[in-house]
Amino acid sequence: MLSKNRIKELQSLSQKKFRNASKTFLAEGDKIVIELLKSDFPCVEIICTEKWFNQKGRGLGSPKELLITLAEEFQLEKISSLSNPSEVIAVCAFPEQKNEIELKNNFILFIDAVRDPGNLGTLIRLADWFGISQIVASEDTVEWTNPKVIQSSMGSFIRLQPQYVNPVEFFSKAKGEIEVFAADLSGSNVYDAELSNKGILIVSSESHGLSSNLEAFVNQKIHIPKFSENISAAESLNVATATAILLSEFKRRKF
Amino acid sequence: MLSKNRIKELQSLSQKKFRNASKTFLAEGDKIVIELLKSDFPCVEIICTEKWFNQKGRGLGSPKELLITLAEEFQLEKISSLSNPSEVIAVCAFPEQKNEIELKNNFILFIDAVRDPGNLGTLIRLADWFGISQIVASEDTVEWTNPKVIQSSMGSFIRLQPQYVNPVEFFSKAKGEIEVFAADLSGSNVYDAELSNKGILIVSSESHGLSSNLEAFVNQKIHIPKFSENISAAESLNVATATAILLSEFKRRKF
Repeated sequence: MLSKNRIKELQSLSQKKFRNASKTFLAEGDKIVIELLKSDFPCVEIICTEKWFNQKGRGLGSPKELLITLAEEFQLEKISSLSNPSEVIAVCAFPEQKNEIELKNNFILFIDAVRDPGNLGTLIRLADWFGISQIVASEDTVEWTNPKVIQSSMGSFIRLQPQYVNPVEFFSKAKGEIEVFAADLSGSNVYDAELSNKGILIVSSESHGLSSNLEAFVNQKIHIPKFSENISAAESLNVATATAILLSEFKRRKF
Repeated sequence: MLSKNRIKELQSLSQKKFRNASKTFLAEGDKIVIELLKSDFPCVEIICTEKWFNQKGRGLGSPKELLITLAEEFQLEKISSLSNPSEVIAVCAFPEQKNEIELKNNFILFIDAVRDPGNLGTLIRLADWFGISQIVASEDTVEWTNPKVIQSSMGSFIRLQPQYVNPVEFFSKAKGEIEVFAADLSGSNVYDAELSNKGILIVSSESHGLSSNLEAFVNQKIHIPKFSENISAAESLNVATATAILLSEFKRRKF
């Protein structure tokens, strides 16, 4: 059973500093946890109701290292960060970071200062769908272990974790090695642009736009033209929908 | 000044039944309210801090019918549904509904049972960007006057309000008049599909998929292929990102 202290400890994982200190984070919900347990993502504990364990937990096998803790619904509710708490929560360990980011022959999604966790989660899910093998994020992007990122990534964080970097250092190294594209309203029409299946695509939050310290590293700016003839129509697209369209353009063309 | 009763009344507008009874809803935030006041959208009252009024409210002119009420920050906080309440909230009236939906020579986005308000708002913003002049929604789609829809539409609700219909009645009428496309995982590859600049595009929430009672009305199902070679990659895209890609495909092609 869960002690009050342990519940407090788990609650504290909603905060970045406690996640970083313990190198653990929470992932909740039936679908995500089942996917987690089928993967080789490092999972240290499953906290679930007895009912969930009997219905779904048994079949999943239980590696020796995995602790399974039964809890009451009201306890899970306390730990959960969802408005509809689920019957199962996993405590995951931070996976090992790859040290080197492969620049040659790669297509990288670079996330520039995106603070909204729902947007970051959606970007991870999109990148997963489009078969992007590497996401790099500026240090001021929300951490991917944030519970709302985990939730909106819908399990894609299992396969794809952004690597956080100092953007100027990263691009100084990348310069000349790989073509750099950036989504920017001042860019050329993406439908007419010459794209490539190798490169870095920088996407920024729509409220701030491309960070000024990255301008110098960009080889080609691209934008999605507004099709509305109404001059007062939407000023911008949200970063997730804009990235969806751009990745679709990069990927659909047969290179 | 705002009375306690009036604050309660305004708070109640977070609920559908009180919005429908009063035929009013709230729109908050600097950017959205300024856009509202520049439009001819029916706005009945502006509630703002004195500071906001002095800095931004004066320049906007004040039509005779528009009531301006000054309020304290703590009062706005009570009325607001945002975690960072803003200094200005508008009380808007329901605009008049057009009765007829033009089926000939039109491109319509049909929203099928999307319950998440953030998704609906993003869809309205997308449709606005892509110059779609008509959104139709099934009755079981979240109401567009929901505060979270208003917020995520980023002002696009001013130009584009979904019209709610009984889907079977609507499509029975539309049948034969206009081509019906539906986003569906079993559909053909959208990049190879023959699209049209006229038609209805049905999009559904990813958790439920295309409603079964609409199947019979669909002329062509389309889907966005998964580019990842990892068989366990993301199972689906969220409805907003999928719609972004589909609208991009419909619109980019020069017909």
